[in-house]
Amino acid sequence: MRILGIDPGLRTLGWGVIESHGSRLSHVANGLCKSDGDDLGERLLSLHNQIVEVIAEHQPDQAAIEQTFVNKDGAGTLKLGQARGVALLTLAQAGLPVGEYAPNRVKKTVVGVGHAEKEQVLHMVKLQLPGCQPKGADAADALAIAICHSFYGATPQSRMKQVRA
Amino acid sequence: MRILGIDPGLRTLGWGVIESHGSRLSHVANGLCKSDGDDLGERLLSLHNQIVEVIAEHQPDQAAIEQTFVNKDGAGTLKLGQARGVALLTLAQAGLPVGEYAPNRVKKTVVGVGHAEKEQVLHMVKLQLPGCQPKGADAADALAIAICHSFYGATPQSRMKQVRA
Repeated sequence: MRILGIDPGLRTLGWGVIESHGSRLSHVANGLCKSDGDDLGERLLSLHNQIVEVIAEHQPDQAAIEQTFVNKDGAGTLKLGQARGVALLTLAQAGLPVGEYAPNRVKKTVVGVGHAEKEQVLHMVKLQLPGCQPKGADAADALAIAICHSFYGATPQSRMKQVRA
Repeated sequence: MRILGIDPGLRTLGWGVIESHGSRLSHVANGLCKSDGDDLGERLLSLHNQIVEVIAEHQPDQAAIEQTFVNKDGAGTLKLGQARGVALLTLAQAGLPVGEYAPNRVKKTVVGVGHAEKEQVLHMVKLQLPGCQPKGADAADALAIAICHSFYGATPQSRMKQVRA
């Protein structure tokens, strides 16, 4: 089963694709979708087009996305929400079942503790996906989300239910 | 010039189309796009498809959308952001120039004061668009946003700049 993990963001959206055969995992590809400029519509369209390309190139069977951390910065939450909405729409248009995982659940699954540092996540992602070189922290997070989904979301034909931490 | 106004929301997204000839305005159509269910991706896809239909049926030249009010309810801001992101993406895919207006700017333009009640907005929308019967408060707000754009965004060929209140 091939899984696309997504770490949503408006400026930088991380993605990672892994292959899962039972408990054996392997790395397929990872990268960053970037959007710049003043026009929000064009930035969202650019993110959408880049995600469409990733799906077309790597043909995942399922997808997983991070549950957004709602913080006190309302403007930041709004930006993230807009990017996340576009990512979820793009995955739904591709007919991909999507699992949603809270950041703590992802860290607990990949590192063993819920409040792991970025470096620990990166280290464990490299350990579990031999030969993988994440193209940035957001790409490493996306791979971690895909690994998390390989543990919790292994029901190939049915649409995933939301998994809460 | 035909203008599509959008009042974004995840459960109910209001829309309204008006025709503007200089200072003369007329009503074309209005309605509500609704999304229900547990699956966020499917709800966003449903909103997207309904907006695509509205654009195909009414062929607007430009669009206008409310700037989202960032409040203390982070979860609400996130939901609204996801719906707003999908609306902005759909307008960008249709190549429509988009004006963004803060709620207070819309009310000041349509009613004359920035803190108008819903009933005042509805009353002034009906007065300015003879024969118009908005299909709900969100549709009336969407028509008000379109009216606001007819005052501030009358530059047919260029992409709108964001207008701040």
